[in-house]
Amino acid sequence: MKKVYVIGTGMTKFGKLEKTGRELAIEAANDAILESGINVRDIEATYVSNAFGIGEEQLHMGPIINGSLGIPEIPSLSIESACSGGSAAFNQAYIALSGGYYDAALVVGYEKLSMNRTPENTKYFAMASDYWYEGMNGVTFPGLYALMASAHMNRYGTTEEMLGSVSIKNHMNGSYNSKAHLQKAIDMDTYLKSPVVASPLKLYDACPFSDGAAAIVLVNEDFNIDRPEKIEVLASARAGSMATLQDREELTGIPGARIATEKALKVSGLELKDITFVEVHDCFTIAEIMALEDIGFFPRGEGGRASLDGLTQFDGKLPVNSSGGLKAKGHPISATGIAQIVEIHDQMLYKVDSHRQVSDPHIGLTHNVGATGGSVSINIFKRSR
Amino acid sequence: MKKVYVIGTGMTKFGKLEKTGRELAIEAANDAILESGINVRDIEATYVSNAFGIGEEQLHMGPIINGSLGIPEIPSLSIESACSGGSAAFNQAYIALSGGYYDAALVVGYEKLSMNRTPENTKYFAMASDYWYEGMNGVTFPGLYALMASAHMNRYGTTEEMLGSVSIKNHMNGSYNSKAHLQKAIDMDTYLKSPVVASPLKLYDACPFSDGAAAIVLVNEDFNIDRPEKIEVLASARAGSMATLQDREELTGIPGARIATEKALKVSGLELKDITFVEVHDCFTIAEIMALEDIGFFPRGEGGRASLDGLTQFDGKLPVNSSGGLKAKGHPISATGIAQIVEIHDQMLYKVDSHRQVSDPHIGLTHNVGATGGSVSINIFKRSR
Repeated sequence: MKKVYVIGTGMTKFGKLEKTGRELAIEAANDAILESGINVRDIEATYVSNAFGIGEEQLHMGPIINGSLGIPEIPSLSIESACSGGSAAFNQAYIALSGGYYDAALVVGYEKLSMNRTPENTKYFAMASDYWYEGMNGVTFPGLYALMASAHMNRYGTTEEMLGSVSIKNHMNGSYNSKAHLQKAIDMDTYLKSPVVASPLKLYDACPFSDGAAAIVLVNEDFNIDRPEKIEVLASARAGSMATLQDREELTGIPGARIATEKALKVSGLELKDITFVEVHDCFTIAEIMALEDIGFFPRGEGGRASLDGLTQFDGKLPVNSSGGLKAKGHPISATGIAQIVEIHDQMLYKVDSHRQVSDPHIGLTHNVGATGGSVSINIFKRSR
Repeated sequence: MKKVYVIGTGMTKFGKLEKTGRELAIEAANDAILESGINVRDIEATYVSNAFGIGEEQLHMGPIINGSLGIPEIPSLSIESACSGGSAAFNQAYIALSGGYYDAALVVGYEKLSMNRTPENTKYFAMASDYWYEGMNGVTFPGLYALMASAHMNRYGTTEEMLGSVSIKNHMNGSYNSKAHLQKAIDMDTYLKSPVVASPLKLYDACPFSDGAAAIVLVNEDFNIDRPEKIEVLASARAGSMATLQDREELTGIPGARIATEKALKVSGLELKDITFVEVHDCFTIAEIMALEDIGFFPRGEGGRASLDGLTQFDGKLPVNSSGGLKAKGHPISATGIAQIVEIHDQMLYKVDSHRQVSDPHIGLTHNVGATGGSVSINIFKRSR
């Protein structure tokens, strides 16, 4: 397999934006190409991730993006993998580059959601669950994650305050991220008093729906680049789980996350202790706690305690979601997985605000979940000179 | 690059079916796995193509398919590339296998459309054009292809009878395909008297919207298979064109089809004369004529004459759409590109009705177009012993 490098990233502000999906996608793509320093004509394919194009009545955005970039002749496609679409698109580009099919590719994820009310978006995205068994019976994602939170609390004694510590940390990190959707710190009192969304999950357990886009330019070792520092993709792995919660043996973790992590560690030749910081999929606070346990950073049932003890703060033992995570940075569905990689990249190059810069951004991992784990992506990156 | 083989195919009947999208997808997938003879547990990833999941309120079908097959732990994703989604998914699987990232993969394309009326489907699929410039102003795909047909007729003198000859041929072939949506032969008089859909295109110029699914199992040379005949993928190439017709220099052909063909021929080391039969994207009759000229089988402006002269019949010089094509076999959008490959496979193994069996099914090519050419896929296959 050829080595693959992230050489340029772009990300719009996340939030309720006065721009269209195509404007957002092209803005991020242009920024990534500009930062990469390569000639746009060297890009051989565009991997676009989007889930809710129908909201703007525009599917098949790839040719529009490519046309706008002046490279209409290259191929594109749209990839959806629920909330992990961005990572799935990244993975496809990685596969093509590591195998030598292409030498340079552009990955773009975008979502435009703010023209809808939250209930509409919630219903739409529930279609990424096993809708006939879950969403159609009234269990949308807040409810599904609430079931997992209840199970985790019952089995391991995970507390509201532990969930709250995740939210408070991510809001703090987000307050120092100028591109975050929610740039405000919150305290435990605010968290505990926030309205219940789906018991035991409250408003401050849940990420917002955001507009936004993120993009990455990737090249392989055959593409001649000369720069002092390189962000190498050590592994890009994906796995799945039974689509419905009712078909799982366990609700306190996501099987696919464990499987994808094992694959990624094997390919990279690393052990977990080598990872110095991570971006995980905190669509709800419980998801961050499960992620830390699924990946294996903390034993089962101890993720909440680790968070409450501050181990996952940007200056803690294992910085988690220094970007603010989905919770505060925001969650423009198909942009999220790519935005996680943008954070890894920016941390590695010391380009983020000092109030959230991790001290050793040497080896980073991203964890991106589609639905309740039907799809999971794990990527590992290394900064090398 | 490792060699890649098609070792199993499955295809449901196409048409207005009393089955759900998930039933169709799983039926085709099971048939492909059964035919391949491999253990389902050897499949490492599932590539799903679907565009209109929202019609059944079910996106993110991959984990549901994998769960039904008993392999929930493997990754899946959904790929949309307008009407070429099936080929785009196939291409991603090919890239992964030829590069050695996976050794065995399942590709599934499906669509469930018959719960909607044709105007609703037409509007929905227009969202795969540059909707804000085309569909929103009333130009859906029949109109866009009508513009191309008008240009072709004006420049090259292509006639209604030439378009009609495409329709008649494909209906004849479809009448011998037990899985075709429209299994009836038509004559020129019926064609000429059919109602106008978008002048100059008539009802019998247009493919139907169909329900249906198709699936393929692919392996690479590292996967140990032992069988007398192999269907090898000699090339899988994709390219694009400007999304909107208004941005093109020419309306009489599709630039991306030429580019993808050049790529595929280069990789395969073949010349066009080596190709013995083809399945092309005849969403409208004019599209088949343009395809033959874009690929280069006939000089510009001579595709219509070639068709009228019978050169493209199943027993002609270059058999085109022996399956019945989109016109008669039907067009379940994201299944179409995969169904084309199923036909190549079945022809190569002499599994089709003798009334449409081509005489030398040695090297086959598929041509699959997304929208008006924003995405185009060309694949080349060879039967080898």
